[in-house]
Amino acid sequence: MRDVFHEQLDAVFDDLAEICRRVESSVHRATESLLGGDAALAEQVISDDIEIDRARERVEDNAFSLLSLQAPVAGDLRVVVAALRMVSELERMGDLSVHVAKIARLRVPAIAVPDEIRPTVQRMAEIAEDMVTRASQIILSRDVRAAIELGRDDEIMDQLRRTSFAQLLSDDWAHGVEAAVDIALLGRYYERIADHAVSIAHRVVFVVTGENPRSVAATEAAAEAGA
Amino acid sequence: MRDVFHEQLDAVFDDLAEICRRVESSVHRATESLLGGDAALAEQVISDDIEIDRARERVEDNAFSLLSLQAPVAGDLRVVVAALRMVSELERMGDLSVHVAKIARLRVPAIAVPDEIRPTVQRMAEIAEDMVTRASQIILSRDVRAAIELGRDDEIMDQLRRTSFAQLLSDDWAHGVEAAVDIALLGRYYERIADHAVSIAHRVVFVVTGENPRSVAATEAAAEAGA
Repeated sequence: MRDVFHEQLDAVFDDLAEICRRVESSVHRATESLLGGDAALAEQVISDDIEIDRARERVEDNAFSLLSLQAPVAGDLRVVVAALRMVSELERMGDLSVHVAKIARLRVPAIAVPDEIRPTVQRMAEIAEDMVTRASQIILSRDVRAAIELGRDDEIMDQLRRTSFAQLLSDDWAHGVEAAVDIALLGRYYERIADHAVSIAHRVVFVVTGENPRSVAATEAAAEAGA
Repeated sequence: MRDVFHEQLDAVFDDLAEICRRVESSVHRATESLLGGDAALAEQVISDDIEIDRARERVEDNAFSLLSLQAPVAGDLRVVVAALRMVSELERMGDLSVHVAKIARLRVPAIAVPDEIRPTVQRMAEIAEDMVTRASQIILSRDVRAAIELGRDDEIMDQLRRTSFAQLLSDDWAHGVEAAVDIALLGRYYERIADHAVSIAHRVVFVVTGENPRSVAATEAAAEAGA
């Protein structure tokens, strides 16, 4: 029984990693449509989101049948529930890239992001996409150290958001209210994508160690300090 | 065994309703701090959020012990997992009211919301709060009709957001970029609170009927049309 359970559980995590790669592509293309003012690409991101939703349903069905048929307890139970939570977060990340694509579409043939703030937005998008890429690797590798590392990158995103606000609110800002509102919302969407990636990484730490990431990081730091 | 399970499950739902009432208070006070420029009240909303987080942990522990000790299958299993999801959403709603309070705090001694757009923001806040109130009643009453009704109110929130954007982007807007960005983000936070309330109501429909709300609503509509 045990082996069937763990095989099926591995299959669930493989599916999660696969969905995470879809989300990565969605974030990537949404950014491309945003920075290139590409309406067709934006449409594609919006219509492709249904595939992420469908993949989520499949993972949920598999996780439920695992719970029903194998009735795992303790640690195993928490792992399956963690998988269910991870898939909800992945779906949200897909929705957030749809929001980015919708801002792109709304401004075509113009480009929502003025040249002057483009490097900041591009950097936010890159960080978000990179965090999603690493989250999918972490789901597959169950690499606790990489997962804790990912959590630390959240700070860079915070900083970029502060930079973007400073630019929007400076006296030099010559692009008016509409562009400023777009940038503020885009920043929020990329920040939330990054938050979810961190949360997924933290759930992997929990899945592997049975502990929450903060205590694992503290133990590691203490070990390093003692070494 | 069956009875112990359902008693414990009822206790979990009572706890969920209790957390939902805390969220309602959080949304209410955040709005008050925002519209009154009340820094002390904003601080209180921010620091009280830890209580929602702690209550979430207790519900999670209870739900996990239910799963572990009673190993429910099929419908019962899905109900417990739905409860776990509802509590995550409630926690997020608490976080979102903290975001509202943080915007209030940032602008003190000024008030983030200019008089001219105050009615729109106030209406968004009222709708969000009302939806949270009704969500907590729905959790307790398991009233499927009320839950489906709640889903329909989402449209009002969408409309208010469109109204707020029209105001921000009109030539008459004299409050600059900072206030516009605040309003856009506030609109997003209230909208997300409302989304989560709808999602919670939909989970209650699923808990009661075993079906998703869309098909339940369609069946009801067909019955009414035939009557």
